[in-house]
Amino acid sequence: MKLATLKDGSPDGRLHVVSRDLTHTVAATAITPTMQTAIEQWDLVAGALEDLYDALNAGNARDAAALDTCRLAAPLPRAWQWLDASAFHSHGDLLEKVFGLDPPPEKRTVPLMYQGAGDDLLGACDDVPLPSEEDGMDFEAELVAILDRVPMGTTVAQADRHIRLLTMANDTSLRALAAKDLRTGFGFLQSKGATTFGPVAVTPDELGDAWRDGRVHLPLHIHWNDAAFGHPDCGAMGFSFGELISHAARTRNLTAGTLIGTGTISNANFREVGSACIAERRAIELVDEGAPRTPYLKFGDRVRIEMVDTAGRSIFGAIDQTYVRADIR
Amino acid sequence: MKLATLKDGSPDGRLHVVSRDLTHTVAATAITPTMQTAIEQWDLVAGALEDLYDALNAGNARDAAALDTCRLAAPLPRAWQWLDASAFHSHGDLLEKVFGLDPPPEKRTVPLMYQGAGDDLLGACDDVPLPSEEDGMDFEAELVAILDRVPMGTTVAQADRHIRLLTMANDTSLRALAAKDLRTGFGFLQSKGATTFGPVAVTPDELGDAWRDGRVHLPLHIHWNDAAFGHPDCGAMGFSFGELISHAARTRNLTAGTLIGTGTISNANFREVGSACIAERRAIELVDEGAPRTPYLKFGDRVRIEMVDTAGRSIFGAIDQTYVRADIR
Repeated sequence: MKLATLKDGSPDGRLHVVSRDLTHTVAATAITPTMQTAIEQWDLVAGALEDLYDALNAGNARDAAALDTCRLAAPLPRAWQWLDASAFHSHGDLLEKVFGLDPPPEKRTVPLMYQGAGDDLLGACDDVPLPSEEDGMDFEAELVAILDRVPMGTTVAQADRHIRLLTMANDTSLRALAAKDLRTGFGFLQSKGATTFGPVAVTPDELGDAWRDGRVHLPLHIHWNDAAFGHPDCGAMGFSFGELISHAARTRNLTAGTLIGTGTISNANFREVGSACIAERRAIELVDEGAPRTPYLKFGDRVRIEMVDTAGRSIFGAIDQTYVRADIR
Repeated sequence: MKLATLKDGSPDGRLHVVSRDLTHTVAATAITPTMQTAIEQWDLVAGALEDLYDALNAGNARDAAALDTCRLAAPLPRAWQWLDASAFHSHGDLLEKVFGLDPPPEKRTVPLMYQGAGDDLLGACDDVPLPSEEDGMDFEAELVAILDRVPMGTTVAQADRHIRLLTMANDTSLRALAAKDLRTGFGFLQSKGATTFGPVAVTPDELGDAWRDGRVHLPLHIHWNDAAFGHPDCGAMGFSFGELISHAARTRNLTAGTLIGTGTISNANFREVGSACIAERRAIELVDEGAPRTPYLKFGDRVRIEMVDTAGRSIFGAIDQTYVRADIR
């Protein structure tokens, strides 16, 4: 089924069910009020939500309305935990080569992962307010799993069953601040802006055969100001979602509603399929042409991210948003 | 005033007011249900909470009961954002010396800060479950501010007014895993267990003259298995809380209920006042004796952390907890 969160002025919004074809929606608040409570009570509420989804798809849901994705918040407008990995080896390999970084000895066996800020997440249509173009504004298109409670010590084999929903994200990054954050060893702090999430989150079964091996075997389509920028295949993940989850739960419990991301989608044949962030394109230019020539984002630039199935139907709806100067007083 | 969260089986518990002398408590749920809602609606509810606090202190609060700190959760049992700094220069200087680390060039002007896991926080009396003694279990005693919403770009001068409450924390760390986390640049992930918070959180005015310059000028007393371990002065912070908050809000908003920590308390005269974590004591032993001789924590070890005012009265109550083997299946 497909779920979303309608903005209603409250911090957590209202839970909605969305039709498979993304044309209609209906409030699910009579079943459970928010996405967070749905995840917490999944076994109790999933059946009733599925019934409502079936009725909506059949045109039989009372009070159904046309879907306007710009009225949607992030599926979880704030999340208790937002963990983001760097699970695509071709991306890491390229950046190591370009920046002369020492590859960590365990880079093929231990996922890279950082804690992100989950307290202030943006909806798919929201502007991205940032203080300065000088900070090197970049997008990062990726996939995200929404988990129910994962106990400490969960194994890779046990981990996939905790994935309740999947969606996309635009993990806005500030490249001019990243080197300083990385050098401290303390992780990304000032170098990450608020993250944006896909309008709709879907249960893994919605992906059919494309969901296997703990990966989504479909390309993600990225546009920058209406020009196609990349369409790398998400199935090329070097670690499965299960491996990412088990890594994160090694020494801690993950509360219901934890978000775990793949990091920038990247394929080894990036010259053919393009990239999911500007930093990777600039790295390719540096290798191929001796210098990067693509600039980072300017205020007013638009970014569009969407995944379609093999029949061309949108799965999560589209992230389609504009970078703007933050109103700082 | 002094506030706390009573465990009631729900994820966020129930808001309580606690008497200044920490002997009595009364439910504040008729004013606002939880600590999180209190912080979100501070200007609307603080007056009524103060009135209830005054009545409790005067012995006039209906339904007041004796306080049992072991029935308290963390003030925020889960937080939308937990940011932790390393604000004491003597701690950083010592560890750099011992481990031969290159000091960041801006170490006196830019705070070190990482995002912690805020989704699963422990109460002051709770056991700390961890998977293995081999991970190098350590405590870190520190102070924490609880903030209302901080907009992006908040200056140092504006930042202090966002501090609604102060409390203590035990930022449990796994030293055997820290070097690997730091080497990635992606920050602490497996090397931090669930953080424990003081039983009670207090408004800054409760600290009287000890709260000035955005710092708490009182020692924090740490005991390990009933032996005194350290009592460093929290006033020695190299950065004020205002500087930490402004640093964190450079490129993002901080949602109401954000926690921001000082990092391990440490004083330059550590040989006299002792330390707030085992790692620092081991570093001193390495410098003085050529090798560390104090081992990290064993399962069954107890840690006690408390701050008292100049008259010897406890401010936040005590963190007093035991490290135990996690029940992993």
